[in-house]
Amino acid sequence: MKKTVKIGLFGFGCVGQGLYDILQNNTENTGFEAQILKICVKNKEKKREIDASYFTFDKDEILNNSEINLVVELISDAEEAYQIVKKALLSGKNVVTANKKMLALHLEELVRIQKETGTSLLYEAAVCGSIPIIRTLAEYYDNEFLYSVSGIFNGSSNYILSKISNENLSYDVALKQAQKLGFAEADPTLDVAGFDATYKLCLLATQAYGIFINPDEVLRIGINNLKKEDIDFAKNYSVKKENDQNTTNFKVKLVASISRIKSSENNQVLLYVLPVFVDAENPLYNVENENNAVLVEAAFSDKQTFIGKGAGGHPTGSAVLSDISALRFDYQYEYRKTDRNKEKNALGQTLISPTQNVEAEVYLRFENHLSKKELLQNIDFTEILTENENHIIGKIILSELFEKRDFIEKHHIFVALCGEVKAVN
Amino acid sequence: MKKTVKIGLFGFGCVGQGLYDILQNNTENTGFEAQILKICVKNKEKKREIDASYFTFDKDEILNNSEINLVVELISDAEEAYQIVKKALLSGKNVVTANKKMLALHLEELVRIQKETGTSLLYEAAVCGSIPIIRTLAEYYDNEFLYSVSGIFNGSSNYILSKISNENLSYDVALKQAQKLGFAEADPTLDVAGFDATYKLCLLATQAYGIFINPDEVLRIGINNLKKEDIDFAKNYSVKKENDQNTTNFKVKLVASISRIKSSENNQVLLYVLPVFVDAENPLYNVENENNAVLVEAAFSDKQTFIGKGAGGHPTGSAVLSDISALRFDYQYEYRKTDRNKEKNALGQTLISPTQNVEAEVYLRFENHLSKKELLQNIDFTEILTENENHIIGKIILSELFEKRDFIEKHHIFVALCGEVKAVN
Ligand SMILES: NC(=O)c1ccc[n+]([C@@H]2O[C@H](COP(=O)([O-])OP(=O)(O)OC[C@H]3O[C@@H](n4cnc5c(N)ncnc54)[C@H](OP(=O)(O)O)[C@@H]3O)[C@@H](O)[C@H]2O)c1
Ligand SMILES: NC(=O)c1ccc[n+]([C@@H]2O[C@H](COP(=O)([O-])OP(=O)(O)OC[C@H]3O[C@@H](n4cnc5c(N)ncnc54)[C@H](OP(=O)(O)O)[C@@H]3O)[C@@H](O)[C@H]2O)c1
Repeated sequence: MKKTVKIGLFGFGCVGQGLYDILQNNTENTGFEAQILKICVKNKEKKREIDASYFTFDKDEILNNSEINLVVELISDAEEAYQIVKKALLSGKNVVTANKKMLALHLEELVRIQKETGTSLLYEAAVCGSIPIIRTLAEYYDNEFLYSVSGIFNGSSNYILSKISNENLSYDVALKQAQKLGFAEADPTLDVAGFDATYKLCLLATQAYGIFINPDEVLRIGINNLKKEDIDFAKNYSVKKENDQNTTNFKVKLVASISRIKSSENNQVLLYVLPVFVDAENPLYNVENENNAVLVEAAFSDKQTFIGKGAGGHPTGSAVLSDISALRFDYQYEYRKTDRNKEKNALGQTLISPTQNVEAEVYLRFENHLSKKELLQNIDFTEILTENENHIIGKIILSELFEKRDFIEKHHIFVALCGEVKAVN
Repeated sequence: MKKTVKIGLFGFGCVGQGLYDILQNNTENTGFEAQILKICVKNKEKKREIDASYFTFDKDEILNNSEINLVVELISDAEEAYQIVKKALLSGKNVVTANKKMLALHLEELVRIQKETGTSLLYEAAVCGSIPIIRTLAEYYDNEFLYSVSGIFNGSSNYILSKISNENLSYDVALKQAQKLGFAEADPTLDVAGFDATYKLCLLATQAYGIFINPDEVLRIGINNLKKEDIDFAKNYSVKKENDQNTTNFKVKLVASISRIKSSENNQVLLYVLPVFVDAENPLYNVENENNAVLVEAAFSDKQTFIGKGAGGHPTGSAVLSDISALRFDYQYEYRKTDRNKEKNALGQTLISPTQNVEAEVYLRFENHLSKKELLQNIDFTEILTENENHIIGKIILSELFEKRDFIEKHHIFVALCGEVKAVN
């Protein structure tokens, strides 16, 4: 049953205006009625590009308006967004949101409310902008045994890495460029320290494996301690492959990943957001600048790569629009993998759960103020492969990295995966 | 409303067995009931891997079985497939098919029958195997103004091109390898002469632009006349870019493409399947071996690339399964762009239509038996840029190439796009 979508919009910033723009200018858009009735924003002083009668500063003017059947939530405040989305669902309105932070913190509860109220909560735009990865996981891979879902989920940090690598810029200059171009947040920590990618990874964990992950429990190390010398080191880093040839010329990418750890029951997954040395055979190698990419490895459909714009008003707005469009038919994500986990749980079967009991080869560079001795007293390697005065390459259990994350951050240590990741027996 | 899917399967070859395998071994597949009741095949002598009671040689045993609510059509005979699919839809059964040839020849009629009977016809597996491009175009891009949809749609020919380029094999040896590995058809013409890619392109034209294209009307030149020297030529070919730097090191890829031609009304599209010189900035450059790729360029979501396995029993079977899974909810493709075109037509507005009135830069290599003079008497260039004793680089109107396709084929001329494609005023 088609119906006219009457929208109450929260937020009129980058994405909100992008959506407005698309609804105004989309010549393809006949036969699909979507109308913005009201827009709630915060700042009463700000000049707006469109008629003042659209705007309100009182969220209840949208939430209590019974004519509005869809709330589109595009504000920058995660806590307030949570209140808005929850109330909207509880009052029987469908919700489309792009707020990955809010979702990562509250998805389990919101999915429960969605079920109880028979509403629909869609969030394609929250993960990798215009790449339709949520819908694809929810619908297309809903029967598939997935080995891994990984990729480049943050455009700003990828832009910075590209600029340092390809144009020899320093980290600081590259970051300033990203900010100037509007890719990075005013406070870029969300991007470069890997928070943004972690939130997205948590949402994909739910769609790909039916599990809800607390972002704080994900091993997360960003590129905020990276220097140009790390990128140069990766370029010259050389690894012997099976065929005895050398792979060299690695790039550093900030990779988010959830993958099954090989074990008898295949019921453990490793999640991380980490800088990784990738070689030319990796599909992420050529993903440059502000682009995002998602790789899916599945038992039957094999490897797939999706590359596209991960941010920006128009790409993100177009993802919002595709959710709005799907709601004409009351489309919902099914969460079949989540339901199956509940069934398994009731039957006392082992569930998929996160592990960090995994050994990985890492490159770790430290600053002069820290002696190598001090470093090794604080961080336990299972094996040291090579070392010099300012870096170590060695094997480490990833739970050890997780536990020492405060030490790593405090001492501005740069860490990257540079080789195999293997389950510990 | 969920329902148990009871399947009548036609064909038990590469894809049919792949699907059977997946249904047997998919551990993720709880909560989703799909059951194969009967399998119709052709050859009575062939040994089958599974119980003989599954099989029939009489299509009506499936088509007249009222317990069966879904026909999965995976046979190699396009004409017979058409009869089966048509009858199944007319008798109220949903259909999933992977048969791109059959669909390309009959889609308009079958979509009409689907509408009249309220059934559903799904065909994700028919285009680029496991890449979910049909669903993505139908759902995600249904509101988007698309500039182009293009890519590498045939795994066998891409495999051949990769092997010649990366391992210095001759065309014939590479083709034999592809056949041995099961990528290429016994009669490889379908692959290397571009028929297979053309069928897929026609299906994408419907989903992307709402138009039905006769495959015979598509400009189609394959790689069957390619020699290693063409690939070497591309490697050394050099073009000045805007920034005055040279691009060189091109690869030859068999590219299928539908794109809007810039004009006042933006209502013309160019379709072709042609060898193209692509440079390292093109996302197709790194798509190697049997992989497929689809690029979508859209007004708001910008550029997206999807890369994955385009063929093989499991990847294709997994696409079939995702269609079967969607039918639990009577999912249908909506064809909103098609409907909109009908509305426009009724209002006397100009419709999207194909054009070949486009000038392109091409590389054209001919064999010794043909003199250059003879060639130029038969094929009209608008401008010749460089020439030597066995090749010409020049500008040509693509309708001229289309008209001379028999001459080109007869004289084993190899043609590739090697530069700009521009509307003619
Ligand atoms: N930017 C992207 O490319 C992108 C991509 C994917 C997802 N997202 C997500 O989309 C959301 C919006 O991002 P954005 O880039 O559009 O942010 P933005 O440009 O900073 O705009 C934020 C908007 O939210 C409004 N707002 C903030 N707090 C509010 C409150 N308490 N009540 C009502 N309105 C409030 C602001 O109002 P004023 O106008 O009055 O200041 C502003 O209009 C965020 O969740 C972000 O993570 C963004
Ligand atoms: N192979 C791929 O990777 C791939 C990928 C995408 C799409 N497709 C499409 O999927 C379809 C099947 O391809 P395939 O590779 O599986 O073909 P295949 O291996 O050659 O198997 C063809 C099957 O069709 C059966 N068959 C042929 N004519 C028949 C008829 N008149 N009545 C009943 N059964 C008949 C054959 O029966 P017998 O067993 O008795 O010989 C055989 O089981 C084709 O449309 C193809 O274009 C294939």
